[in-house]
Amino acid sequence: MGLVWLTLDLAGTAVFAISGAAAGVKHRLDVFGVAVLAFVAGNAGGMIRDVLLGATPPAALSGWHHVTVSLVAALLTFVWHPRIERLRTPILLFDAAGLGLFAVSGTQKALAYGLDPLVAAILGMLSGIGGGVLRDLLVNEIPTVLRRGELYAVAAFAGAAVVVAGHWLQLPSSVPTMIGGAVLCFGLRLVSIRRGWSLPTAEDIEWPSQKQR
Amino acid sequence: MGLVWLTLDLAGTAVFAISGAAAGVKHRLDVFGVAVLAFVAGNAGGMIRDVLLGATPPAALSGWHHVTVSLVAALLTFVWHPRIERLRTPILLFDAAGLGLFAVSGTQKALAYGLDPLVAAILGMLSGIGGGVLRDLLVNEIPTVLRRGELYAVAAFAGAAVVVAGHWLQLPSSVPTMIGGAVLCFGLRLVSIRRGWSLPTAEDIEWPSQKQR
Amino acid sequence: MGLVWLTLDLAGTAVFAISGAAAGVKHRLDVFGVAVLAFVAGNAGGMIRDVLLGATPPAALSGWHHVTVSLVAALLTFVWHPRIERLRTPILLFDAAGLGLFAVSGTQKALAYGLDPLVAAILGMLSGIGGGVLRDLLVNEIPTVLRRGELYAVAAFAGAAVVVAGHWLQLPSSVPTMIGGAVLCFGLRLVSIRRGWSLPTAEDIEWPSQKQR
Repeated sequence: MGLVWLTLDLAGTAVFAISGAAAGVKHRLDVFGVAVLAFVAGNAGGMIRDVLLGATPPAALSGWHHVTVSLVAALLTFVWHPRIERLRTPILLFDAAGLGLFAVSGTQKALAYGLDPLVAAILGMLSGIGGGVLRDLLVNEIPTVLRRGELYAVAAFAGAAVVVAGHWLQLPSSVPTMIGGAVLCFGLRLVSIRRGWSLPTAEDIEWPSQKQR
Repeated sequence: MGLVWLTLDLAGTAVFAISGAAAGVKHRLDVFGVAVLAFVAGNAGGMIRDVLLGATPPAALSGWHHVTVSLVAALLTFVWHPRIERLRTPILLFDAAGLGLFAVSGTQKALAYGLDPLVAAILGMLSGIGGGVLRDLLVNEIPTVLRRGELYAVAAFAGAAVVVAGHWLQLPSSVPTMIGGAVLCFGLRLVSIRRGWSLPTAEDIEWPSQKQR
Repeated sequence: MGLVWLTLDLAGTAVFAISGAAAGVKHRLDVFGVAVLAFVAGNAGGMIRDVLLGATPPAALSGWHHVTVSLVAALLTFVWHPRIERLRTPILLFDAAGLGLFAVSGTQKALAYGLDPLVAAILGMLSGIGGGVLRDLLVNEIPTVLRRGELYAVAAFAGAAVVVAGHWLQLPSSVPTMIGGAVLCFGLRLVSIRRGWSLPTAEDIEWPSQKQR
């Protein structure tokens, strides 16, 4: 189980790191800046979760694996960015998979640290979206995930909720709910992209007084 | 005492969360973004303080109360934002009260962790202003509290200083100085708003060489 | 050794704090905002490192020294900013020295906490550059260190790598490699400024398909 888990975790890190490196290339950062954005996008979500849990040093810093994977992803994106842009669809697929994976593993870790189920689901979601939030802040943009758009954080939260539900029901193993949560998150992401689902903004709420104008 | 304290703490969280949600609505974030800004504005100050103290998980994450209060405040603001804008004066009052409360409770906690009095007062102030700073960063603005304007952080620091002074004098109870500090912060805030007091910027300093031009 | 070390550390803090205060004056922050930027620029790198290591409260908060030095630097810069601007060259020199100092001491601390050498070098570099990154974020700019420019983070990483190499070789004392690393970082900084060395951006890579257009 441990090796399978590490492999999945590093695959998620790699995909998120590519998204960070691509943002760095787009904003004309130099190769160091691109590497920083890759590392942040790939690892900051889990690192913030671990700092909040008091699980220091964070998993991403307790070995050379995460750093190395992030740097390789950064270099490949830096050198081959015109080709990587053409890989949009596979990257969207891997990103959705990474999101589901990080959301369920983050939730599971928070539950293992004894956190309240609602808070655990939020920390799981944060594990999934935190890297992208910090990536956007570093290039001076309002985080994509906060703006109107496809379901992203909500998909992560839905996946996290499945893990929490399994914990609540005291199921003998967390593996099935983790797989189920990751698949739910992945599926919600893809359906929402294809159908253009999005969350409302406050302007979408009509008020009687506004109608009369 | 515990229940009174929790109630006050959650009331402060709610008011700050409303300020975060209102900022989210103003920047046209979707309902998830509005909820994130509410949670951040209501809780990030205390969370940063707790992480720096090593008091993990932070108080805001050690139960469902803070998350729930923040989400309710976010939803109410999201749905009723035109009405909430009309509540400007009561919100300013509650915000001043929340600031005083967070500043003195943050200072007290830092002193309880054995920090140097000067540092404890700074962490108390940070508990009061940190949520607003992160709220502004997330919507890509220079934090209000750093720009020229009313006395805000200074009011929080003054309240914190009262608690530190009581600690220094080894008073038998911290309750009177905490109440005094919160009241001082609250009063300073209101007077500075009413009289338009503000701190100087460097441009306000006249230099002889500049006068001659 | 302890006193020498504290003095050097506080000197580095002071120089970085001046850079933060100068950024605050430039963005027309009030005197409180200038003080915050000074404190952040002088101390945030080490504070982030310490939080990630679980070394709480961070060194910068475990006494009144760092806060006091930062505030004094802020006030001096606030009052004398036209004169401090004329001190550009000495400040660049001190900044390069501070960078080298923070990079090697940060690396050494991370190694002492048992981190992997590659990760320790990264945390050392982060100790050196983190304050400047947060300073730039607070005034709503893409961090200077990520954009094309002189070698800055790379100089810090090179200095950190020397300390890591000494650790790897199990040298009996870390003092020579720390001095060597700091000197290397300092020298690389100065040479790169003088010769205009910089890192490439992705646009610098020519692609055959782009040439044909």
